Amino acid sequence: MQKNTTPCYYGDYLQLEKLLTAQAPESAKYAAEAHDETLFIIVHQVYELWFKQILHELKAVMAEFAHAEVKDEQLTGIVHKLKRIITIQKLLNTQIGVIETMTPQDFMSFRDYLVPASGFQSVQFKMLEIGLGLKSGFRIDFDKNSFYSRLNVKDQDFLKHLEDEPSLFERIEKWLERMPFLQLNNFSFWQMYQQATDTMLADDKATVQGIEQIAEHEREMQLKEIERTAEKFAALLDADKYQQLQQDGTFRLSQKAMLSALFITLYQEEPMFNLPFQLLTCLTEIDENLTIWRYKHAMMVQRMLGTKIGTGGSSGHDYLKRTTEKNRIYTDLFNMATFLLPKSDLPALPKEIKRGLGFYFAGQE
Amino acid sequence: MQKNTTPCYYGDYLQLEKLLTAQAPESAKYAAEAHDETLFIIVHQVYELWFKQILHELKAVMAEFAHAEVKDEQLTGIVHKLKRIITIQKLLNTQIGVIETMTPQDFMSFRDYLVPASGFQSVQFKMLEIGLGLKSGFRIDFDKNSFYSRLNVKDQDFLKHLEDEPSLFERIEKWLERMPFLQLNNFSFWQMYQQATDTMLADDKATVQGIEQIAEHEREMQLKEIERTAEKFAALLDADKYQQLQQDGTFRLSQKAMLSALFITLYQEEPMFNLPFQLLTCLTEIDENLTIWRYKHAMMVQRMLGTKIGTGGSSGHDYLKRTTEKNRIYTDLFNMATFLLPKSDLPALPKEIKRGLGFYFAGQE
Amino acid sequence: MQKNTTPCYYGDYLQLEKLLTAQAPESAKYAAEAHDETLFIIVHQVYELWFKQILHELKAVMAEFAHAEVKDEQLTGIVHKLKRIITIQKLLNTQIGVIETMTPQDFMSFRDYLVPASGFQSVQFKMLEIGLGLKSGFRIDFDKNSFYSRLNVKDQDFLKHLEDEPSLFERIEKWLERMPFLQLNNFSFWQMYQQATDTMLADDKATVQGIEQIAEHEREMQLKEIERTAEKFAALLDADKYQQLQQDGTFRLSQKAMLSALFITLYQEEPMFNLPFQLLTCLTEIDENLTIWRYKHAMMVQRMLGTKIGTGGSSGHDYLKRTTEKNRIYTDLFNMATFLLPKSDLPALPKEIKRGLGFYFAGQE
Amino acid sequence: MQKNTTPCYYGDYLQLEKLLTAQAPESAKYAAEAHDETLFIIVHQVYELWFKQILHELKAVMAEFAHAEVKDEQLTGIVHKLKRIITIQKLLNTQIGVIETMTPQDFMSFRDYLVPASGFQSVQFKMLEIGLGLKSGFRIDFDKNSFYSRLNVKDQDFLKHLEDEPSLFERIEKWLERMPFLQLNNFSFWQMYQQATDTMLADDKATVQGIEQIAEHEREMQLKEIERTAEKFAALLDADKYQQLQQDGTFRLSQKAMLSALFITLYQEEPMFNLPFQLLTCLTEIDENLTIWRYKHAMMVQRMLGTKIGTGGSSGHDYLKRTTEKNRIYTDLFNMATFLLPKSDLPALPKEIKRGLGFYFAGQE
Repeated sequence: MQKNTTPCYYGDYLQLEKLLTAQAPESAKYAAEAHDETLFIIVHQVYELWFKQILHELKAVMAEFAHAEVKDEQLTGIVHKLKRIITIQKLLNTQIGVIETMTPQDFMSFRDYLVPASGFQSVQFKMLEIGLGLKSGFRIDFDKNSFYSRLNVKDQDFLKHLEDEPSLFERIEKWLERMPFLQLNNFSFWQMYQQATDTMLADDKATVQGIEQIAEHEREMQLKEIERTAEKFAALLDADKYQQLQQDGTFRLSQKAMLSALFITLYQEEPMFNLPFQLLTCLTEIDENLTIWRYKHAMMVQRMLGTKIGTGGSSGHDYLKRTTEKNRIYTDLFNMATFLLPKSDLPALPKEIKRGLGFYFAGQE
Repeated sequence: MQKNTTPCYYGDYLQLEKLLTAQAPESAKYAAEAHDETLFIIVHQVYELWFKQILHELKAVMAEFAHAEVKDEQLTGIVHKLKRIITIQKLLNTQIGVIETMTPQDFMSFRDYLVPASGFQSVQFKMLEIGLGLKSGFRIDFDKNSFYSRLNVKDQDFLKHLEDEPSLFERIEKWLERMPFLQLNNFSFWQMYQQATDTMLADDKATVQGIEQIAEHEREMQLKEIERTAEKFAALLDADKYQQLQQDGTFRLSQKAMLSALFITLYQEEPMFNLPFQLLTCLTEIDENLTIWRYKHAMMVQRMLGTKIGTGGSSGHDYLKRTTEKNRIYTDLFNMATFLLPKSDLPALPKEIKRGLGFYFAGQE
Repeated sequence: MQKNTTPCYYGDYLQLEKLLTAQAPESAKYAAEAHDETLFIIVHQVYELWFKQILHELKAVMAEFAHAEVKDEQLTGIVHKLKRIITIQKLLNTQIGVIETMTPQDFMSFRDYLVPASGFQSVQFKMLEIGLGLKSGFRIDFDKNSFYSRLNVKDQDFLKHLEDEPSLFERIEKWLERMPFLQLNNFSFWQMYQQATDTMLADDKATVQGIEQIAEHEREMQLKEIERTAEKFAALLDADKYQQLQQDGTFRLSQKAMLSALFITLYQEEPMFNLPFQLLTCLTEIDENLTIWRYKHAMMVQRMLGTKIGTGGSSGHDYLKRTTEKNRIYTDLFNMATFLLPKSDLPALPKEIKRGLGFYFAGQE
Repeated sequence: MQKNTTPCYYGDYLQLEKLLTAQAPESAKYAAEAHDETLFIIVHQVYELWFKQILHELKAVMAEFAHAEVKDEQLTGIVHKLKRIITIQKLLNTQIGVIETMTPQDFMSFRDYLVPASGFQSVQFKMLEIGLGLKSGFRIDFDKNSFYSRLNVKDQDFLKHLEDEPSLFERIEKWLERMPFLQLNNFSFWQMYQQATDTMLADDKATVQGIEQIAEHEREMQLKEIERTAEKFAALLDADKYQQLQQDGTFRLSQKAMLSALFITLYQEEPMFNLPFQLLTCLTEIDENLTIWRYKHAMMVQRMLGTKIGTGGSSGHDYLKRTTEKNRIYTDLFNMATFLLPKSDLPALPKEIKRGLGFYFAGQE
C-alpha cells in the first residue's frame, strides 16, 4: 500500500479544534450558566457520533445487499458490520446511566431555555429507523403523526426522500426469497414439518388441559393462545391464509422469505447456514437493543420530568413507552421460536442436500 | 476479636460437596440428556443464591426501620445495604445475557420434561416482591389470580403469612411521616411552594400553546396532561383531594410521607438530607432495576418460546410484559420530578432551620 | 421426543433445599455473626457454580476435538460453547463489583475466622487452568511452588492426574496441524509472504528512523524491537530457528500449528475459514478475560487487605498481579497481529484453492 | 428563572453541522478509503468529548477546594461530581469493546497513513493526569521522558504551565490537613490505636508461623512482608520515619493528611464522616478505573499490533503496561486497608466528640 507523505498530528486528525468548541450552553446566554448543561450537550453529541457510525455500517451493509447475488465472502463482512452495530447499541444503552447522574432538579435549571428543541428532532436517529425498515406504514399511529411534525422543512424533505429507497428489511426479504434450497424438488420437507408441528400443538393442548394448578379462566386463555398459534402454523404453508395474517400485521416478511428464514433457523448447525443464521440473529438483536434503548430512555425521561411535559412540548416518556412495544421491525425473526421443532423431531436432510450445505474442499477429492 | 480455633478449608467452608452435586438434569432421566439443561439449572440456582443475598440485606434494613427512631448512624448502614442490592440487581440484569446463549431449539430439547415447573414458583422472588411492598392489594389483577396459583400449599401459606408483616414500603412511609421538620411552625414553606408551582404550570401551559410545530390533537393532549398535573399539585396540600387520588392509585404514599419525601428532594443538598435523599434514590433505583429485569426477562422468554406457552402453562412473556408496567412499588418517588422546582425558585430556608440541617461540631464553638 | 411422566416442581428441580441451606458463616460459630460474611460465602458459591458451567462446556468441546477429524458441523457447536464461556467470563468480571461493596473494615470482622482457607484452594478453578492448557510446565515459578501447596492430598492427587490428559491447548494444536491446505503444492504462498513481510519490516524501520519527535534512546529501543520481530518472522519458516524460539518461550504452538493459525487469520474472510477464525478468536478472548479477571481480582484484594496478608497466609494481590502477566496460554494467537499483512498486500489465492474454500451447493450445478 | 426568547432547534443546539463533518479519513486522501477508519476516528472523538466532560467536572471540584474552608453543602456537590466522573470512566472502559470490533488486519489498511500521530498526543488526557495529581515528579521514568516528546510546542507549553497549578491531589491533601478533629486534646486516640495494631501484627505473625501448608521460602516472604507493614505502622505516628517512607515513595500524602484520611476511614459510619468517606472512596475508584482503562487499553493495543510498533513509533502496549502499575495517584487511599482495625477493636469515641460528629437539629432541643 502507498506510504503517507505528510506527517499526521492527533489533534488535527480528529479536528478537535472544531469538536471541543462545539458546546455552547443556552443557559450561559441568559447569564445563568448551568453546570450540567455541558453534560446534557456532550451526552447528545456522543449519541450523534455513534449514530453516524451505525449509519456508516448500515450503508455498507445495504450496498452489499444491493447486488442480485450476495456471495458467501460478503456475508462474513456483513455479519461483522452488524455485530459492530450491536456492540455500539449496547454501549448506547449503558450510556443512559451517565445522563441519569443529572438530577431532575439540575435539569430544571436549564431545560426551559431549550424549548422547543427535542430528541425527536434527531435526523440521524430517524435515518436509522427508516434505514432499518421502520417506514411510515409500519409506525404506530401516534408516531405517524408526530414523526415529522417537529422537523424543519429541509430535514423533513430529506427524510421523506429516504422512505422511497429500499430499507435493510426489504433487502433482507429479497435475499431470503432468492435462497435456492426451497425449490428442492422431491424433498418433501414441508409435509414432514407440518406433521411434526401438528403433533407438537396437540401435545401443548394436552399439557394445558392436564395441569391442575391453574385457574379455569387462565386455562381458557392458554387454549385460545394455542388456537392462534395453530392458525399461524396453518398460514405458513397456505399462501392465502398467510396474506391475511400479513395484512393484519401478524407477519411482516413475505411467505417465501419467512420460510427461508425458518429453514435456516431449523438447520442452523449446517455449516452453510452458519453465516446466514448469524445474520438473522444479528437483526433480532439490533431490534431488541433498539427496543431496550427506547425503554430505558422512557424510564429516564420519566425520572427526569415525572409527568411534566418535555422541552418538545410532548410527554416524552408516554410516547416512548408506546413506541417501545409497537415500533419493532424484525418481529418475525423475534417470534421465530414459535415455529421451531426440537432437533430430535427434525426431518433428516436428504444426502445430496446435506452435502450441498457442507463444505467441499477441492484438495479433499 | 476472638481467634479461630479450627482450621478452615475452602471447599468445606463453601459446602461445595452439596452445591456442586445439586444439578440433576431431568432430560437425563429420560435417557436424552440435553447439554444445555445444566446451563438452565445453574443460571436459576445462581439467581436463587442472589435472591437469598438480597433478602439477607432487605431483612437487615427492615430491622433497622423497626425502631421508633432511626438514628443517623443507622442510615449509613441502611443506604450501604440498599446500594448493595442495586449492585446485585444490575448483575442479575446482565446475567440474562447468559441464558440468551441458549438457542430456542436447544431449549426445546428438554423444556417438555420440566412441565409444569415455572419461574413463577420461585418463593424467594415472591418474598422479595412482598418484602419490598408489592402486596396482593397492589398487584395487577391478572397477577392477583396467578400469584399463588402455581405454588404448593406449604409455600402458599408461608407467603400469605408474610403479607401480614409490614413491608419496606410501609416502614419507609412511617419513617417519612415521623420527620420532624414538617411541623416547622412559622415557616410558611408550603404557601411559597404553591405560588412557585402555580407560576410554573402557567408557564408550561403557555409553552404548549406557543409551540407551532405540533399537531392540534397533540396540543390538546398536552394541555389535558398539564391539567392532570395541576390537580396533583392541588391535591398535595389538600387532605381530601389527596385521599381521592390515593384511592384511584395516583399516589401510594400517605400525604404526610409524600410531603416529607418532596421536602427532602427539594433540599437534597442540605448535609442532613444527604443520607435520606440517598435512601429515597436507592428505592427508586431498586424499583427501576426490578422493572428492567422484568422487561428483559419478558423479551428473553419471547425469544425462547415465541408465542408458545411456557412450561408453567402460561404465556410467560405476555404476563411479564403486563407486570412490567403495573407492578411498580415506589412510583411516587419515581414521579417526584413532577413536583420539583428549579433551585433558583426554591424558597430560602430560614436561618434556624438551615442551621438545624447542617453539622454542628462541638470543637468548633 | 418422549413426554415427561412426573410433574416437576421448581424448588425440587433446583434442589433449593440443599442450595439455600449451604451458607454457614464461621463468625456465627464464634457468637459474633458478621452481616457481610453471608455475602462473602454467596459470592464464592456463585463463582463455583459458574466454574462448574464453564467446565461443562469445556469438557464438551474437548470431547469434540478428541476425534481424529473435526467436522464442519462440529465447529458450529464448538464455537457456540466457547462463546458461552466468554459470556460467563464477562459476567464473572462484572461480579467483582459485588464483592467490592464490602468495605475492608467489614471484611476484617470475620476474615480471621477463615484462616487458612483461601481462593487458591478452588479445585474447579485449577481444573479450568489445567484444562485450558496452563499445566505446571508453563506456570510462573512462584506459582509452580504454590499451585498445589494449599490443597489437601485428595485434591492434589485429583488435579495432578488431570495434568496427564491432553488440554484444550494441545487438542487445538493437533487440530491446526491436521489442516489440509498447507501442503498445497505448487502454491508458493510462503515465499510471497516472506517477500511481503520483508518489505513491511523495512518500512517500519524507515518509519522509526524518520520520526523526529522521539528521543534517541527511545528510537533505539524501537529499532531493537523491530529486530526482534524480524527474528520471529525468520523463525516462522525455519524449523530450527522456530524450535529455539519455542524453547525460550517466544512461541508455544508448534510451527505447523502456528502457520495454520496464521493462514486462517490472513484469509479469515474466506467462508470456509469463518468458523475456524471464530474459534481462534474465542480462544484469544477466553485468555484475555481470564487475565482481566486476575487483574481486577488483584486490585480488589489490594483494596480489601492493603499490604496485609490474606487468610491463606499469602499476599494474594502480589501473587495475583504476577500471574496476570505470565500465566497466559494462547499468547501466540494474542500476538498474531505481529505477522499479519494488509489485505492489499496479501497474495491472491489460486483459483482452485479459492474455490475449495468457498461453498459448493449441489443444487447450483 | 428567566424564560427563553429564541426557539431552539436540536441540530443547531448541538452544532451537528460541525460535529458530523469532522470525520476525514486519511486513507481517503490516498484514494484507498478504509471502511474502518471512520470507526477509528469516531471512537477517539467520543473519547475526547468524554475527556472534556470529565475535565469540566474536575475543574468545578477544584474550584470548591480552592476555598480555605470547604462547607458541608459543598461536599454534597463535590461527591456528586466525582461520582459522575466514575460513571463516565466505566463507560470509557466498556467502550474499548467497540474498537476491538476492528480486526488487526482492518487496522493495517490505514494505520500507516496516521504516522506519527498517536494517542500520546491527547492533550486533554494529559490535562486529566496532571489535574488529578500525576505531575512529572511522580511519573515513571520512561514516562518522564516521553510525556512531552510527541507534542508540538504549543501543547507542551500549555501543559507545562498546568503543572505549576495545585492539582486535585494537593487540594485534597490540604483539605485533609485542615480537619479539626485531630487536635482533639485529651482524647488519646492514637495511643489506643497503636496498641490495637501491635496486637494485630503479632497475631498475623503467629498466623503465618502457624500455617502448615505453605513452603518455607513462602513463609519467610510473608514474614518479611509483615515486617514491612510493621515499619509502616511505626512510621504513621513518627514524623521522621514517615518522612523517610514518603521520600522512598511508600507514602505520598503528608503525615497529617494521612492520619485524617485514616481517622475518617476508621469511623466512616459517623454521619459527619459520611460525605468525607464517600469523597475518599471516589478518589480511590477514579484511580482504579484509570488503571483498568490503561490495562485494557494495553491489551487492546497488543491485540491490534502484536509486537509491532505503534503509529507514534512506540511499542504502545509495553509502555501502557508499565504505566498501569506505576502511574497511580491515590495509592495511599488504595492501601488504606493496611491500617484498619476491626470495628470491634476500635477505641470508642468520647461522648463530646461522638456528639460533635452527629447531627444536631435545632428543633430537637
